[in-house]
Amino acid sequence: MQFCPNCGSKIFMKIPEEDNRLRAVCDNCNLTHYENPKIVVGALATFEGKILLCKRAIEPKIGLWTLPAGYMELNETTLEGAVRETVEEAGADIKILRLFAMHDLPFVNQVHIFFLAKMNSPSLSPGSESLEAKLFDVDEIPWENLAFRSVSRTLTYFIEKKTLDKDCVYTSQFRERGEK
Amino acid sequence: MQFCPNCGSKIFMKIPEEDNRLRAVCDNCNLTHYENPKIVVGALATFEGKILLCKRAIEPKIGLWTLPAGYMELNETTLEGAVRETVEEAGADIKILRLFAMHDLPFVNQVHIFFLAKMNSPSLSPGSESLEAKLFDVDEIPWENLAFRSVSRTLTYFIEKKTLDKDCVYTSQFRERGEK
Repeated sequence: MQFCPNCGSKIFMKIPEEDNRLRAVCDNCNLTHYENPKIVVGALATFEGKILLCKRAIEPKIGLWTLPAGYMELNETTLEGAVRETVEEAGADIKILRLFAMHDLPFVNQVHIFFLAKMNSPSLSPGSESLEAKLFDVDEIPWENLAFRSVSRTLTYFIEKKTLDKDCVYTSQFRERGEK
Repeated sequence: MQFCPNCGSKIFMKIPEEDNRLRAVCDNCNLTHYENPKIVVGALATFEGKILLCKRAIEPKIGLWTLPAGYMELNETTLEGAVRETVEEAGADIKILRLFAMHDLPFVNQVHIFFLAKMNSPSLSPGSESLEAKLFDVDEIPWENLAFRSVSRTLTYFIEKKTLDKDCVYTSQFRERGEK
């Protein structure tokens, strides 16, 4: 941040009184502009045991497969965001079952939150961010062509733990770019 | 947002191509500045069955009791944020046990995430944001003087469900200001 979003004055990075971190402070309007991690919300949705994946039409990771997911928007819940992203990216009609996994990615300042969901029908209609949306049997999952580690980890939790009807929520932390 | 944080030019709210929401767009540097919900992280920490609460020294809700919690910072995990807030607000030395509750508050664009934790000692040293930090027996909790609904809900889950050694994560949604 170089300029104050409120008044357009030059921003100076300083540690405000009663704080212990460098912040973007505007001396003109006396505001501190905080920057915080962002939430990515998504769904692991199934239809008759098959798992919904989308092939990305946009960077990063264009051409690789992902669970439908994206940045949480203002004025929505995590669950609503997961449903919205699944509609936008796959055109799928889903019912959320429960919270399933939360991944910390501090090196990109993101928290990824995935819900388990059931598809109400196998109908798919990929949106502009997807080249394709498809249902995969567990033994067909394209492990070598998954876009993100939080996606492969979520799929691994789902397949290895078989916890669809339990209440366990899995958590993981990815410390560095590229770490498995 | 009135001015571009990158170049200081006037911002115009418009719906970018391939988007469906009003965004803060800078026509000068051709950047879209997204605004997203923020994460609040905290801990329900116990010592010999007593629950740690802090009396707020700052607005909002000055003088009311809360679980130690605050905005997640850049470059930390949710767990690290919960530990940091507990140190800052209560001076408590804790060990996180597991993820426990996640609350959506879309009317303030926040997601509150609470971890269960054990205190390694009963030693407390409230920081500048707390008037007092104290361990409460379950039947001493000041229900009428709690600062936030996500705090009272988290405490209720803990007390009613007795799930300290299970893996259940509780979720809730608060739709409007003041809704119980």
